[in-house]
Amino acid sequence: MTREKAYDLLLEIAKNAEKKTGIPAYPRSVLNVMSAAALSNNVFWVARYSREAFNLLIEILKELEKRNLVNLQAGVELTEEGKKLLQDVGYEIKFRICDHCKGRTILFDEILDKDVVREFIKIQENRPPAIQEFDQGFVTSETTLARVAYMYYRGDLRNRDIIILGDDDLLSIAVGLTNLANRIVVIDIDKRLTEFIQRVSNEYGLRIEVYTEDLRRPLPEDLCRKFDVFQTDPLESLNGFKVFVGRGIAALRGERCAGYFYLTLVDASIDKWREIQRLLLTEFNVVITDIIPDFSEYVNWNLYFEEMQAWKILPESLRQIPRDGWYVSTLFRIETLRGSRGLFETISSEENIYYDKELASA
Amino acid sequence: MTREKAYDLLLEIAKNAEKKTGIPAYPRSVLNVMSAAALSNNVFWVARYSREAFNLLIEILKELEKRNLVNLQAGVELTEEGKKLLQDVGYEIKFRICDHCKGRTILFDEILDKDVVREFIKIQENRPPAIQEFDQGFVTSETTLARVAYMYYRGDLRNRDIIILGDDDLLSIAVGLTNLANRIVVIDIDKRLTEFIQRVSNEYGLRIEVYTEDLRRPLPEDLCRKFDVFQTDPLESLNGFKVFVGRGIAALRGERCAGYFYLTLVDASIDKWREIQRLLLTEFNVVITDIIPDFSEYVNWNLYFEEMQAWKILPESLRQIPRDGWYVSTLFRIETLRGSRGLFETISSEENIYYDKELASA
Repeated sequence: MTREKAYDLLLEIAKNAEKKTGIPAYPRSVLNVMSAAALSNNVFWVARYSREAFNLLIEILKELEKRNLVNLQAGVELTEEGKKLLQDVGYEIKFRICDHCKGRTILFDEILDKDVVREFIKIQENRPPAIQEFDQGFVTSETTLARVAYMYYRGDLRNRDIIILGDDDLLSIAVGLTNLANRIVVIDIDKRLTEFIQRVSNEYGLRIEVYTEDLRRPLPEDLCRKFDVFQTDPLESLNGFKVFVGRGIAALRGERCAGYFYLTLVDASIDKWREIQRLLLTEFNVVITDIIPDFSEYVNWNLYFEEMQAWKILPESLRQIPRDGWYVSTLFRIETLRGSRGLFETISSEENIYYDKELASA
Repeated sequence: MTREKAYDLLLEIAKNAEKKTGIPAYPRSVLNVMSAAALSNNVFWVARYSREAFNLLIEILKELEKRNLVNLQAGVELTEEGKKLLQDVGYEIKFRICDHCKGRTILFDEILDKDVVREFIKIQENRPPAIQEFDQGFVTSETTLARVAYMYYRGDLRNRDIIILGDDDLLSIAVGLTNLANRIVVIDIDKRLTEFIQRVSNEYGLRIEVYTEDLRRPLPEDLCRKFDVFQTDPLESLNGFKVFVGRGIAALRGERCAGYFYLTLVDASIDKWREIQRLLLTEFNVVITDIIPDFSEYVNWNLYFEEMQAWKILPESLRQIPRDGWYVSTLFRIETLRGSRGLFETISSEENIYYDKELASA
């Protein structure tokens, strides 16, 4: 097939998939899915390797199947025709990350005390399970520890005042165990979590201040402009993101404070990433200092895996619960500078921050 | 010292340093320098760890010395008073990156063929030395190989049409040796370099197309909108950046193509990073997909190390040529999406793209 003809075909597939999902799709989106299918048969892992939004990926797969470019009868498989097309106009994803740090750039067990690691792993075994109501899905304990280690590496831990917005990852407990932070505050809407964190904090003397609050409401006045660092694993609807990260920035003292958040390419398209980055650069007026791909690995939210949007749209033949690790998110670190500003306004509780058309795992 | 009093002191130091350099300075800039001074005595390594612009760092050190917070008699050393201040209101940079991938997230020798690595290291030994006229300073051969490996990891190598804007790093040769790319084009203003690359390309049959051109002029028409990927290690004046990266985007085919460039925090302040990111998000309208800190290590530009701006402003007692590796840059990967656009206009050759007040190594 000529390059031009192949391009027309890919464009047609992209257009159809976009029509079904409302998510921007490109010829490269299709090639990303096909290249990823060369690496795995499991649809969830194809999502990870392709870096395309899950809902879009499913529609692309269906279009590819119609044209006999993939076979979906037993997992995802490129047909001979599909392989030929990929060979002619595609590329190759040589997926091989550092197996020492797992592509995180740092190792938590080289940066944190052995005791911190051991205690945290023990404590988190009794955590409340993830529930769908608040779109929860927590990271592996290695990920939580790596997040703390990364803060330390960047000068954002010792002696710092730290606020965590939404904490089903139990980051506050890991930070507390290091005994390095000056102040730790957690806000979460879920009573099960805040009670768990409070109990552990009391038991271990971690001095974590715990608030059970809905972030759609402005931060309590005594938490505004009081911190050096925030951490949040935000909702990935644009409104959800704005609330979590905007409140995070509002909690910071002023210039040259740091914020950490995490974004997937499962529940957010690359076009949404651009919208989010525009929001950061123009409205919040911060600078992005680090973007570490796939820093965070999540544990499957077993209580509701089969209830989520992504499962419902999946062809029967692809409904196999994958091993953990397919759902990953990218670490973003930002800094405030002159003119940075957070979100101080109320967001109407009518506003659905838990939904938009790109969310697949919700 | 109370936190408030310490803050006033840091603010005063920052203000004075900003007045001298014209570079935005913050209390945290001062703390960054002091925290870095706890890790090294060599001023160039203090620059690396602090992540503050070099020209600013020097003025901060002078201000700190005046207040007896550092001693500059034999390299950079915190005084007892300085240590106390850091203890009271500072933090700690736990500088420990993965020693396996050196914080790059991938290993070039796991991704590239052994032969490619060996041949490239041999070939680059005969390269032309870096000269000041074009603000050259090339990366280590490991870095060049890691850049190629990262492209492969991201699907930006096999079967791709690749353009390299400015190539004292000899990336084109490393890409050529893999025999994976579909097309390789190099543009450089320096005849010594383009002749060297052409000679190697002929000798090894790498089919590199070499252009000797000034990027201030628009790209030759037959190079516009023709590539899948660009690579450039741009000048770090805002105008220089705009020219290198804008021309790179102009060379791309259209949507979902990729670009790689590198920025330091030696020659560019964190405020300039924000300006650059705003340019990317609003004017060029691209998305940033990866920011890997300190991905690239440079070899000291020995021919003119003592001629550069940074050397001239250095107090006598700090003038010690450091070992390689202090000068690092951060990898940025961008993708074009709908509405992205490059730079097609001519930049006046009167315009000095080689200078602005933040450049220290020029």
